[in-house]
Amino acid sequence: MTHTDDALLARRARLLGPAYRLFYEQPLHLVRGEGVWLYDRDGRRYLDAYNNVASVGHGHPQVVQAIARQAATLNTHTRYLHEGVLDYAERLLAQLPPALGQAMFTCTGSEANDLALRIAQAHTGASGLIVTRHAYHGVTAPTAEASPALGAQGPRSARVRTVAAPSAARLTGQATADEVGRRFADGVHAAIADLRAHGLAPAALLVDTVFSSDGVFTAPAGFLAEAVAAVREAGGVFIADEVQPGFGRTGEAFWGFARHGLVPDIVTMGKPMGNGHPVAGLALRPEVLAAFGQQCRYFNTFGGNPVSMAAASAVLDVIEQQDLQANALRVGEHLRQRLRGLAQRHALIGEVRGAGLFIAVDLVADRDSGAPAATATAQVVNGLRKHGVLLSATGPLASTLKIRPPLVFEAAHADLLVDTLDQVLRTLPAA
Amino acid sequence: MTHTDDALLARRARLLGPAYRLFYEQPLHLVRGEGVWLYDRDGRRYLDAYNNVASVGHGHPQVVQAIARQAATLNTHTRYLHEGVLDYAERLLAQLPPALGQAMFTCTGSEANDLALRIAQAHTGASGLIVTRHAYHGVTAPTAEASPALGAQGPRSARVRTVAAPSAARLTGQATADEVGRRFADGVHAAIADLRAHGLAPAALLVDTVFSSDGVFTAPAGFLAEAVAAVREAGGVFIADEVQPGFGRTGEAFWGFARHGLVPDIVTMGKPMGNGHPVAGLALRPEVLAAFGQQCRYFNTFGGNPVSMAAASAVLDVIEQQDLQANALRVGEHLRQRLRGLAQRHALIGEVRGAGLFIAVDLVADRDSGAPAATATAQVVNGLRKHGVLLSATGPLASTLKIRPPLVFEAAHADLLVDTLDQVLRTLPAA
Repeated sequence: MTHTDDALLARRARLLGPAYRLFYEQPLHLVRGEGVWLYDRDGRRYLDAYNNVASVGHGHPQVVQAIARQAATLNTHTRYLHEGVLDYAERLLAQLPPALGQAMFTCTGSEANDLALRIAQAHTGASGLIVTRHAYHGVTAPTAEASPALGAQGPRSARVRTVAAPSAARLTGQATADEVGRRFADGVHAAIADLRAHGLAPAALLVDTVFSSDGVFTAPAGFLAEAVAAVREAGGVFIADEVQPGFGRTGEAFWGFARHGLVPDIVTMGKPMGNGHPVAGLALRPEVLAAFGQQCRYFNTFGGNPVSMAAASAVLDVIEQQDLQANALRVGEHLRQRLRGLAQRHALIGEVRGAGLFIAVDLVADRDSGAPAATATAQVVNGLRKHGVLLSATGPLASTLKIRPPLVFEAAHADLLVDTLDQVLRTLPAA
Repeated sequence: MTHTDDALLARRARLLGPAYRLFYEQPLHLVRGEGVWLYDRDGRRYLDAYNNVASVGHGHPQVVQAIARQAATLNTHTRYLHEGVLDYAERLLAQLPPALGQAMFTCTGSEANDLALRIAQAHTGASGLIVTRHAYHGVTAPTAEASPALGAQGPRSARVRTVAAPSAARLTGQATADEVGRRFADGVHAAIADLRAHGLAPAALLVDTVFSSDGVFTAPAGFLAEAVAAVREAGGVFIADEVQPGFGRTGEAFWGFARHGLVPDIVTMGKPMGNGHPVAGLALRPEVLAAFGQQCRYFNTFGGNPVSMAAASAVLDVIEQQDLQANALRVGEHLRQRLRGLAQRHALIGEVRGAGLFIAVDLVADRDSGAPAATATAQVVNGLRKHGVLLSATGPLASTLKIRPPLVFEAAHADLLVDTLDQVLRTLPAA
């Protein structure tokens, strides 16, 4: 921590107030980014194994040029005709099952989930909402109420019920999709029953399709199907929150829901969509949108504007041209293999799981019990930062390493990550 | 309407669904913008007298360059240290009364108002909300519920009360600030009493400080003070929604609330802040933010990122360098004078009012009664569009012309607007 950083910390507290948080015991002061690399003010470089927003790499020139060119030409809104929003909607919907025939645009994933909830309520006439126990879906009032990950003191709502993510019993290594799916669906059934006991009905089951903040649960493929059938039978819709999993990250498909053989009623998306430019949106079944469209017009001043659409379109170009979905599949598999190899030398490493370049590594005090090693996880995250590798922790106790790099991450970067992790684990203070 | 535009309309309905709306009977298909001018696909130019987002002019090169330069350098988020967000917060807060000592950043005005409501609830422990009868404050669920302007079928909430804007009695021409203020405060007192009768207390009085969607009411200066005192006495806070009035538009001050001699508890802002780049935010009294900060952390993935802050900072540069606040004052006064001159030739023109470059012109069937001429207003708006001038309508019956051009609007542009309006009024079909 330099004297300059101390001064910055003091300025932050004074100017931005008490609600903002920083990563790391020694916060990072970044000044430049390129590809998978971030540089601090002293010119030191860090391997970025965490930031999914800069999905096609920090400062990708094609995206920067698309933004600059369109910003110099025209930036208006969706109350004038413009081909940009239509061309992009068409490209986006082509990446989705045909049943999801319409798109709407917002600026943030929070706004996308907030709008999805409004649309689900208009369609179902119900207000109940089912989310997972450590879910995160946004920072507007209704999405924050659907985000238990914001903490015990976070906002609560009488219309929200939580269910254990398909992690709770740690069945995922051995159990079949049917077994995991049944257990998750049991939770959803119980939530529906409890809503009904309070005079409510479910408008939606809303889940991040890789359960990013619950601890990252992707296998066995198919486990989501039974819970989705349950909520539909009770009159609710299924909203797939693809803000973190979407846009090729999971490798085997463009969206996280695909591995479960499902077609959602509403798909929400955001973070990587514009590689950092604030653009987000929804894809929907037209029959689910109809009631909202009859009741209410929708206008988002910056949503779907020509510059945002140019940025989002350039991101799709790069994903296609650089075949980043296939890269996520290949490098993700390599990284998980190497992490499992590392587990043979370090008892602290528990389960390694994930899909593509969305990877979780449980750190455990005891492998048999799976007891979480939260303190060690914080030490590892901070140790990696000192050794020039950036990642973070997830899960209810923050005892799981969350690895979620830009999709231009290569095998050599994965090796550097694993070798550095090896080094940090070897020097870790005894628990 | 060309064949191509018909095809675009059909694509829009198919791809974006039923909730989107377009301006004008014959929607505009824009392809380029520069300063106060917008160009359609046939190369025809339109004088933009409506778009407040492109506040320093369409495609301003300083803003475009700031965005392009920072996007190529680094675009991360507020969980790393970065000087951009602190430098901008400091500049922004310097434009506000010293009591408003802290800033937070979002991507849209909706998110800013949504967060302001969460903060007001945490501070007051109350949930009631008072807004004006035709207010518009956003599209997240809670802000849409506080936006009766969204229409009779729009969302409703048991915690929201509406009061007549200081327009209701059309007192503003003759009455003193005390008289108008008393009438508005009477409405606020009644709203507080009704909240209490339902077991609620007011968390906030939330108003657009020029009442943009109620019909634009700016005079007599000072009329807001009594209502604000009333809500504070009842334990609530005053949130000044500056999303439309802010950043110099009203000419005599940088913010709309200034003319009322008030210091708000929370100020929200957005639209012109990044000249079209999605950036918005709040300025707050630290003591009002404290309770929220204790209960909850706040992170907005794109909010306050280095690119958004560079765009917002460039907008402040241009406002200062081109002295756009003084321009708004000067050109706005000239435009109102010329519109009042036009009223001598056209009985359809009722009251002309506003501040700086935020101007309203009532169109009336009868000057004595002030009966609104809604059909004629739609004809005038569409007639102006045909004659190459863009503006829109506001107020409960959309019978008021809303003139809100980029701040680089000059006297010659004002003259062109008035001369074109004269021509359109002369050829208007008889009512």
